[in-house]
Amino acid sequence: MIDLHEMVRRLYPLPRSLTGDGVRETLRQIARDIPLEIHEVPSGTPVLDWEVPLEWTIRKATIRTLSGDKIVDWADNNLHVVGYSQPVNRLVSRAELARHVHTLPDLPDAIPYRTGYYAQSWGFCLSHSHWSSMTDEIYRVYIDSDLVSGSMSYGEAFFPGNSEDEIVVTAHVCHPSLANDNLSGIAVATALAARRNLSGPGRLGLRILFLPGTVGAITWLAHNEFKLDRIKHGLVLTCIGDTGPFHYKQSRSNAPIDRAVAHVLNNGEHEFEIRSFEPYGYDERQFCSPGFDLPFGCLMRAVHGNFREYHTSLDDCAFVTARALTESYQVVTRLVDLLDANRKLLRQDGRGEPQLGRRGLYRALAGQADAGGATQMDLLWVLNLADGNHSLLDMAERAKIPFARLDAAAVIAEQHGLIREVD
Amino acid sequence: MIDLHEMVRRLYPLPRSLTGDGVRETLRQIARDIPLEIHEVPSGTPVLDWEVPLEWTIRKATIRTLSGDKIVDWADNNLHVVGYSQPVNRLVSRAELARHVHTLPDLPDAIPYRTGYYAQSWGFCLSHSHWSSMTDEIYRVYIDSDLVSGSMSYGEAFFPGNSEDEIVVTAHVCHPSLANDNLSGIAVATALAARRNLSGPGRLGLRILFLPGTVGAITWLAHNEFKLDRIKHGLVLTCIGDTGPFHYKQSRSNAPIDRAVAHVLNNGEHEFEIRSFEPYGYDERQFCSPGFDLPFGCLMRAVHGNFREYHTSLDDCAFVTARALTESYQVVTRLVDLLDANRKLLRQDGRGEPQLGRRGLYRALAGQADAGGATQMDLLWVLNLADGNHSLLDMAERAKIPFARLDAAAVIAEQHGLIREVD
Amino acid sequence: MIDLHEMVRRLYPLPRSLTGDGVRETLRQIARDIPLEIHEVPSGTPVLDWEVPLEWTIRKATIRTLSGDKIVDWADNNLHVVGYSQPVNRLVSRAELARHVHTLPDLPDAIPYRTGYYAQSWGFCLSHSHWSSMTDEIYRVYIDSDLVSGSMSYGEAFFPGNSEDEIVVTAHVCHPSLANDNLSGIAVATALAARRNLSGPGRLGLRILFLPGTVGAITWLAHNEFKLDRIKHGLVLTCIGDTGPFHYKQSRSNAPIDRAVAHVLNNGEHEFEIRSFEPYGYDERQFCSPGFDLPFGCLMRAVHGNFREYHTSLDDCAFVTARALTESYQVVTRLVDLLDANRKLLRQDGRGEPQLGRRGLYRALAGQADAGGATQMDLLWVLNLADGNHSLLDMAERAKIPFARLDAAAVIAEQHGLIREVD
Repeated sequence: MIDLHEMVRRLYPLPRSLTGDGVRETLRQIARDIPLEIHEVPSGTPVLDWEVPLEWTIRKATIRTLSGDKIVDWADNNLHVVGYSQPVNRLVSRAELARHVHTLPDLPDAIPYRTGYYAQSWGFCLSHSHWSSMTDEIYRVYIDSDLVSGSMSYGEAFFPGNSEDEIVVTAHVCHPSLANDNLSGIAVATALAARRNLSGPGRLGLRILFLPGTVGAITWLAHNEFKLDRIKHGLVLTCIGDTGPFHYKQSRSNAPIDRAVAHVLNNGEHEFEIRSFEPYGYDERQFCSPGFDLPFGCLMRAVHGNFREYHTSLDDCAFVTARALTESYQVVTRLVDLLDANRKLLRQDGRGEPQLGRRGLYRALAGQADAGGATQMDLLWVLNLADGNHSLLDMAERAKIPFARLDAAAVIAEQHGLIREVD
Repeated sequence: MIDLHEMVRRLYPLPRSLTGDGVRETLRQIARDIPLEIHEVPSGTPVLDWEVPLEWTIRKATIRTLSGDKIVDWADNNLHVVGYSQPVNRLVSRAELARHVHTLPDLPDAIPYRTGYYAQSWGFCLSHSHWSSMTDEIYRVYIDSDLVSGSMSYGEAFFPGNSEDEIVVTAHVCHPSLANDNLSGIAVATALAARRNLSGPGRLGLRILFLPGTVGAITWLAHNEFKLDRIKHGLVLTCIGDTGPFHYKQSRSNAPIDRAVAHVLNNGEHEFEIRSFEPYGYDERQFCSPGFDLPFGCLMRAVHGNFREYHTSLDDCAFVTARALTESYQVVTRLVDLLDANRKLLRQDGRGEPQLGRRGLYRALAGQADAGGATQMDLLWVLNLADGNHSLLDMAERAKIPFARLDAAAVIAEQHGLIREVD
Repeated sequence: MIDLHEMVRRLYPLPRSLTGDGVRETLRQIARDIPLEIHEVPSGTPVLDWEVPLEWTIRKATIRTLSGDKIVDWADNNLHVVGYSQPVNRLVSRAELARHVHTLPDLPDAIPYRTGYYAQSWGFCLSHSHWSSMTDEIYRVYIDSDLVSGSMSYGEAFFPGNSEDEIVVTAHVCHPSLANDNLSGIAVATALAARRNLSGPGRLGLRILFLPGTVGAITWLAHNEFKLDRIKHGLVLTCIGDTGPFHYKQSRSNAPIDRAVAHVLNNGEHEFEIRSFEPYGYDERQFCSPGFDLPFGCLMRAVHGNFREYHTSLDDCAFVTARALTESYQVVTRLVDLLDANRKLLRQDGRGEPQLGRRGLYRALAGQADAGGATQMDLLWVLNLADGNHSLLDMAERAKIPFARLDAAAVIAEQHGLIREVD
């Protein structure tokens, strides 16, 4: 399995933005682990109510004293420059510079993350203590950037299933050196794809998208409108590398994935909270817009805007842990496995109970139970609720039995010809 | 605006009953403030299972001592005579009189209100202390009344809306000198009509009915059966002039007005209680009978039968206050405004979020927010839920945001061509 | 009325099993009290996934010492022999005997109940103290039984109603000397049938089934498939003779009987608990299998498996009491009466309230109220909810009024031509 924390550390320094080589290199590194299609969409392409932005490239950025000492260097931390800053190279008074500098007085050692996608300006982000120590009258500011027609990049990995239906998992790839709010989702999504690449097809297809936020999601939606009805379950992954409890934000329209996530979390070992949908957050905003209303939820640990490290240099590789990433990966794989196994079942002949003894079912169960698998009661539940209307998750919820145990019972019953999958 | 308490005081002395000049004069005074159609329905007219009663007129009523001293005079308080009393003019022993006198021993200074619409008798209502002081052996009782074929009067004001749908608000006008249980509803309903008369048409029509209880409602229903399907919301107003908490009795069939009233009360500053429908109370009994099942609730403060002053001379002009009447008027106007604005909305193109910046929406919102209006989050909710299925009230309930703020956001979005009203 | 406890005592010694003369004699005794059809189904008859078993007969069974002393005799307690034991007649060492003896070390004075329907063996059940006292090296075991082709017996009593719809009540008849877990249900079901036999037809038919567990129910279902759609309500009776609180296990699919039982218990004087359906228990397992999904619940006091006396000789005639049996009988008859009276009603003219006074309804109610019957409010509820959609039980639940009182009000309204029953 992919070393999740190593991946976070490796991608951390890349200067990601909505567009440009930071995203491109990120996608190239993901593509080392999984078969990834990298799409380039030209600047200016109309996508729904938006258009693909110009491509912003930054090469260098510094603030120097008059004596030439480099006291701020973008090469040290790519949060130092406000995203989409225009080029500049001149002397500025401290007073003028102050209007272009962002700090966080309440977190004096943290560099804030700021971007101004469509603004016509430039800016630096500094820790407040650093800025406080800069007392010269005059500084030389230098940003070597350009904003020109190019393209926006996004990555897509698709693993077909045995049906046309699919699960979509997305992560955003447009934030620079932020570990939880960007890289944790990228790493877990990559590992999920790598696992499916190894395991081969499931019942449902699995599509993994690495998208620049908002305009990337809108672009993908615009270019895939004709096949959106194949999406049966969607999940946005973000901020899942910290050690806090899980938070799941429900879909807009009470989709099956909401119940599936609740079941996985309820039967897991981690603290969690379920939150109602609201039209603010990550790309579920786009997937859940009323003209699409796709069944997307969003899985997080820390919640954007609600944690101290959010959008600052404190959201670094130490804020996310290898253990937390692995836990999150496990939750997501359990979820995907549940969705994949969540079939509807029908008794071949549902009139009365089948005679279990004659069919060797008690022996089969005895073998299972030794291994912590399905019990006789689990089998009775499956046989009773296999009426073509209950999915396995419906059964698990009604019987208050973990999905995996009912699934094991269902497999036995399928093998003995007592039940079969139905649409 | 109408001086609500002045109106209560002015109408208080009129000798209202199911029929007769007390109601007629009440309607005439209402007609000073609003365009009111006064209907006269002849006695004996069959109306559903009922018929319009004979018209009862009372001119004078006294009890005198043998020496001619007038110790009870209907002219002092029109509660003194049991409604629909037959004429009488003779000497009676105290023992016989006692069988015709109603008092309230537990409230010795209060005169009870009694009526006997279809009985063949006469009676007086006295305070218990008054009656206790009447120790003569013989009294002369005198009631100058008649019960003859005439007509029943009711008032109706209709303000057409931009659609055929309408809101109906009713108050009963058949109680004599009772301020809360009669006049408070009349005053607020009149003010509501006057406000709409000034403001001009809303989305929905507004119909205000001033009806003698039970048979008045049944008569109106019988004469308007062909257009009852236009009634989208109905409200009976009663006992809303006292200073207690609000009580709202829900409609029979879970009508939208129930949620609207709950929203207004939940977002208001007053204590309140929501009560389930029951088939006892005011004219909602008729509107909510199973053959009509109209969406009528009943808004009260004190609940009939549950307050000390109910149906006694203690329910006078001091029991209702100008402030309480104004509060009730405000609750009712907020409710009517909400119902009137409660449209369903649809995004012009609901695929993804619209680009708010390009359209100047952030500027529009900034202006609003300064004035306590809609926020960006309010707008996002409206844009997300404008799928043609959610009414603004649905949105407000789901988002847990006051209706008025979502309405303000909706107006901005409508002005910018992002959403439009749908049926 | 049948003496319930006498019936339990009388049937207690009979050696019931799935098949054989114990069941046959039980049915014959039931047939003394009610018209009962006794069915015999030949061994080997295929019934759904099962087949009717061979008939097991036991005549004698003893354990003797070498000196011929009879220290265990099946004639003393028919629990002493494991059901379906094969014949045996030989000397066995205590060690070998131990492998054929069942005891309950935690209940040293109780004889367990064991059966091995389809096993090829023999066995004895003894109290642990008895077994502990048996210290000889060698014993002579003797079982005179056979297992041959014969038939399985079950009993059926049907009382037609005024419609084709019917209520089915079942009790199992396959347990030997167990009083609560077998005879309590048999006695109450018999008394219920006797009552209907006396009273004559109700609105619904009443069918009482006395069935060997599982294969008896499956046999009845297999032979009556063509008319199962007539079953509107079904109830399995078991363990209802002890003095504990009532337990009602709901049907699989939220059937009306669940609400009816809840209403009866809620308005009764006994403690109770409602339990969700689960696919384990008595014959509701078969009736509620997905291919039938019949509306069957199960009424118990003690819950199988959850009480100390369960499946031991402690479940004897002292464990069930005459009073408890009578209470259970009353609950069941109230339930059946409610189901029988639970008609849907429609106002003849539902537009407005009818004029009660003119029709003498107030007088009719006054008479009732004196007798603790329907009040005016009860009548108003019935008149308001008689819209053709509400059953009387729906009304009772909504109005929070006991069913019997609303039924009394409905009868008055029916007699006065205000409402009528609808389908």
